[in-house]
Amino acid sequence: MVTKEIVVGVSARHVHLSQADVETLFGPGHELEPLRPLSYKGVFAAKETVDVKTEKGTMTGLRVLGPVRKQSQIELARTDCFKLGIKPPVRESGHLAGSTPVTVIGPNGSIELPEGAIIAARHIHISTETIAEWGKKSGDYVDVRVGGERGVTFHNVLLRAGGSGGHTELHLDTDEANACMLNTGDMVEAIID
Amino acid sequence: MVTKEIVVGVSARHVHLSQADVETLFGPGHELEPLRPLSYKGVFAAKETVDVKTEKGTMTGLRVLGPVRKQSQIELARTDCFKLGIKPPVRESGHLAGSTPVTVIGPNGSIELPEGAIIAARHIHISTETIAEWGKKSGDYVDVRVGGERGVTFHNVLLRAGGSGGHTELHLDTDEANACMLNTGDMVEAIID
Repeated sequence: MVTKEIVVGVSARHVHLSQADVETLFGPGHELEPLRPLSYKGVFAAKETVDVKTEKGTMTGLRVLGPVRKQSQIELARTDCFKLGIKPPVRESGHLAGSTPVTVIGPNGSIELPEGAIIAARHIHISTETIAEWGKKSGDYVDVRVGGERGVTFHNVLLRAGGSGGHTELHLDTDEANACMLNTGDMVEAIID
Repeated sequence: MVTKEIVVGVSARHVHLSQADVETLFGPGHELEPLRPLSYKGVFAAKETVDVKTEKGTMTGLRVLGPVRKQSQIELARTDCFKLGIKPPVRESGHLAGSTPVTVIGPNGSIELPEGAIIAARHIHISTETIAEWGKKSGDYVDVRVGGERGVTFHNVLLRAGGSGGHTELHLDTDEANACMLNTGDMVEAIID
C-alpha cells in the first residue's frame, strides 16, 4: 500500500453567490468584502452572511465565500439539512442541475433559488504536478485513511487537479470531520496504490 | 474477507437520567413515561425532554431515554458539542469518570452534573449466541463497511455482547450516520475476518 500524507480542511455550511444575487441581497453595486483568506488559493471568507430558509426551517448567519461565482450555491452538511427539512444531493461544487431550491435572505432583499443547495462531495485539491507524481488524473478516486480511536477510511474521494503549485488538501464537511474527530490542519493518509 | 450484514440504528443526542435526577428535574415521585419503544430491547424514548446548558450555549428539547440508570449521562454528537463549546471524551455508555460537566434543566429544577457528557463510542449490540458464531468475544473490535457514493469503513467498532437472542445492531451517532448518508434500518457489512 502506497500512501501520501495530506492536510485536512473542514468546511462548515457556507454560501457562494453570483454578483447579481449579491446585489439583490446586499444592495445595488455591493461587492463582497474579504474577512480572511481561506487555505485554498484565492478563496476568502467574506464579511457578509445570509440566512437560508425552507418551508420547514431557517438557518441564520451562513458565511458567504468569495469571489463571486456564475451561479449561487448553498453547501450544507446533512445535519443542517435535517433541520431545514430538505434532502439535497451529494454533488461536486458547481454541479447544480436539479439540486434543491431554498430561499436566501440578506439585509436588502431575498432570492428564491430554483436550485442551489447541495451536500458537497468530499474531494482532494491537488496540483497538476502532484497528481502526476501520484500516477493519477483529475477525476480519479482514492481512499483516505484517518487514524485515532474514531478512525475511518473514506472511500470514493475525488481528485480535483487544477493549476500549478500549492499544497494538497482534503476537503470534508463538518459531519465527515466530526465522525472521525478531525480538525482543519490535521494530517491524514491518501491511499494511492 | 468474511462479512456479516447488520442493521443500523442512528442515535440522535439524548439523555439518560438517574431516578434522583428525574425527581429533581420533573418533581418528587415523578416516573419517566414511555413515548415509544426503541429497537434495543427494553429501552424507550420517554415523553420527557430536558435542556442542556454550558457556559457557551444551550440546547433545548433533548429526549430522555428510559428506564432510569444509576448515573445521569448526556450523549452528544460532536456537532452539538461545538455549539455548546465543550469537548467531551469519546466513551462507551456508562463510562463517565472524567467526562464533561454540564447543567441539565427540567420544568421542576436543574442539576449541575460534575461529569456526564460524552460522545458515544460506536458499537455493535450482539447476542452471546451470535458473537460466538462470529468467532469473537465481547470487547473485540471489528471494521464496518458502508457502501454508496459516500461510502466509508468505520474502524475500531466495539462488540458489546449481552443476553440471549435479539438482532445484531450497529449504533452510530448522527455525525457518523450523516457522514455516509445512513438512516436507521439501513444494512451495512461487519467485516469479521
